[in-house]
Amino acid sequence: MAEIPKHHVPEENNTTSEKTGIQEEVPYLALDIGGSLIKLVYFSRYEQSPAEDHDNTDMMKALEHRSHPVHGGWLHFVKFETRDINQCLDFIKFKQLHCRVGTDMESKQKGIAAKIKVTGAGAHKFADLFMEKIGVTVEKEDEMDCLAIGANFLLKVIQNEAFTFIEGKKESVDINKNDLFPYIFVNIGSGVSIHKVAGDGNSELVDGTRIGGITCWGLGRWLTKCKSFNEIIELSKCGNTKRIDLFVEDTFGDREYVEKHTNKWTGPPNMNIGSFGKAISENKTLEDCNAEDISLSLLEMISHNIAQIASLNARIYGIKRIFFGGSFMKDNACALATLSSSVHYASKGTAKAMFLRHEGFVGALGALTSYENKHDLFIMDNDKMWKLP
Amino acid sequence: MAEIPKHHVPEENNTTSEKTGIQEEVPYLALDIGGSLIKLVYFSRYEQSPAEDHDNTDMMKALEHRSHPVHGGWLHFVKFETRDINQCLDFIKFKQLHCRVGTDMESKQKGIAAKIKVTGAGAHKFADLFMEKIGVTVEKEDEMDCLAIGANFLLKVIQNEAFTFIEGKKESVDINKNDLFPYIFVNIGSGVSIHKVAGDGNSELVDGTRIGGITCWGLGRWLTKCKSFNEIIELSKCGNTKRIDLFVEDTFGDREYVEKHTNKWTGPPNMNIGSFGKAISENKTLEDCNAEDISLSLLEMISHNIAQIASLNARIYGIKRIFFGGSFMKDNACALATLSSSVHYASKGTAKAMFLRHEGFVGALGALTSYENKHDLFIMDNDKMWKLP
Repeated sequence: MAEIPKHHVPEENNTTSEKTGIQEEVPYLALDIGGSLIKLVYFSRYEQSPAEDHDNTDMMKALEHRSHPVHGGWLHFVKFETRDINQCLDFIKFKQLHCRVGTDMESKQKGIAAKIKVTGAGAHKFADLFMEKIGVTVEKEDEMDCLAIGANFLLKVIQNEAFTFIEGKKESVDINKNDLFPYIFVNIGSGVSIHKVAGDGNSELVDGTRIGGITCWGLGRWLTKCKSFNEIIELSKCGNTKRIDLFVEDTFGDREYVEKHTNKWTGPPNMNIGSFGKAISENKTLEDCNAEDISLSLLEMISHNIAQIASLNARIYGIKRIFFGGSFMKDNACALATLSSSVHYASKGTAKAMFLRHEGFVGALGALTSYENKHDLFIMDNDKMWKLP
Repeated sequence: MAEIPKHHVPEENNTTSEKTGIQEEVPYLALDIGGSLIKLVYFSRYEQSPAEDHDNTDMMKALEHRSHPVHGGWLHFVKFETRDINQCLDFIKFKQLHCRVGTDMESKQKGIAAKIKVTGAGAHKFADLFMEKIGVTVEKEDEMDCLAIGANFLLKVIQNEAFTFIEGKKESVDINKNDLFPYIFVNIGSGVSIHKVAGDGNSELVDGTRIGGITCWGLGRWLTKCKSFNEIIELSKCGNTKRIDLFVEDTFGDREYVEKHTNKWTGPPNMNIGSFGKAISENKTLEDCNAEDISLSLLEMISHNIAQIASLNARIYGIKRIFFGGSFMKDNACALATLSSSVHYASKGTAKAMFLRHEGFVGALGALTSYENKHDLFIMDNDKMWKLP
């Protein structure tokens, strides 16, 4: 896989004063402001290595910063916590990302404020703050439309974007652009939305669940005293659900009987039939249990439930492919594994779970592509593209 | 509504020494031993008032004891905690419920142990204990078959068994026995099973969820320090989910905007979009929140999720009626209200949630009707029946 060179200039060599962070060519910037996280996507002519950015922006608390080469420049993906909205605005200001966005020369001369595309619930909540702090108007983009548009963009344009997760391994999926539709797209962020995508500009929000990423982090915070959702994911890697959940083998005394008879209706002995079922025992207090086990049970419970609801929707609409996006999946092997196996189980093997590498940025990308004249930017040239590392 | 007379003898006047608890006519006894609760159903020629029973059996810790008149006698419904299995066996022994069950005169003379019908996972786990303590053989009945048979029995035989729950009120539903099928039956006990019932002896376990009663009690125990599941239900009556969950109105700053625009995709301002979503705030520890609010959020989260999964299954099979049973519903107004409204919402008004008054005893009744010659007992005469109080 080709290495992405630092400061590579894919096309023409524009003058940019990188030391000050000022970019002369930043025609595109969009944000998705969710309940917990802000996802920011912007385009630049030059790559800026995350290391260098860190030097300049470490006071800005970006949780994540990665880049991907596209024709004519680079796409950058940056994440902040929503409660750090001011840090995010400082980041935009420092990099002057807002200066050339969404305004033409005539508007500029008339003193009309630039407009930036923002989606997610925070587009409404923070509109005044954007004007006050960086002097731009927020153009609110429909969150659900952006998710479907962003998913289509990623699946059609970015090579090796989709992958499966089988036996702990990511494997890229070749997407045939002419045979992509229909698919189910499930976005798991703070909330969960389930979309039926039948074509470009042809999508429908069909379902969701209130048991999503925010539930996982909220319950996890109370049950484990973890300081961040990432800590819960980290701890889950050493967890064992057998100490927290109830399994078929726990409820039947006779092991031999279980093995002989339970496949009919209750599933195999190791089938999980009650999340947090062992928490009912009188001699088991919360303090007796370790945070690793609780984290894993919580992640599995929530992932399995989402997979089940997504699979039922896939059955209703006769759809075989389910793509999952959203920040919940980021570095979350437990979620990937559970979603994969649970879709297989719930759909009786008829549907397949796949994942997007730019999982958290689907909505922001959808907003980014909603600028006019976006076509200049996104005409991709496969010969000049690098594969994602 | 007719009052049920104490010690009424619906048919002939048999000799029974009630003071000692010994019954001469107890041809039927069946149990459903679940993960948390034992449900016991037996028939007697005489009614025994719960008050009198209490005098004799208060050391036996029965959680619930009610009776229902049927042709030729009474059906009794008794509940114990599964961890109190020995109390339950003492109760059976004290009342000699096992003495005439499942054995004929010839077997008795040959010294062959009586057989009693037991369903639920505990049928396997406790079989040896039944032989050891009361000298009977356990005949294991398929739990899922028993649930469907029990639901059919209740809906066809017991008047006013089914009810709807609308605006806090129970309203009996007239069941047309000739237009009962197909229906979805959802049993919510420790675990959750979802059945498609297409006729007598024609049912299929189609789905379930690992987020059921045991999850509610397990998480509730850890989060609220409640001593019993009933305490969680009791507390929930004074709870407010607005302090625990995340709603559409919480994530949008501009109230006017919410009211104008959110109906399209996010639902109304008071729509719950993240269970335990407010638990993520840094300045909100578990200790800051009251047990009433947590109990209500937990019950609503779990009830809503079950209703959603049941409704999706109803859509898949094109079924309009969903009956809910299981001990989770007992005295649980929050569950009844949430299941009702969530089925309405998730099915877009096409399906209807209904509930069974003998909610926890469906499986045990299914086992009871699996004795041979059961038909003598269950030929009902509507003219001689009392309505349930």
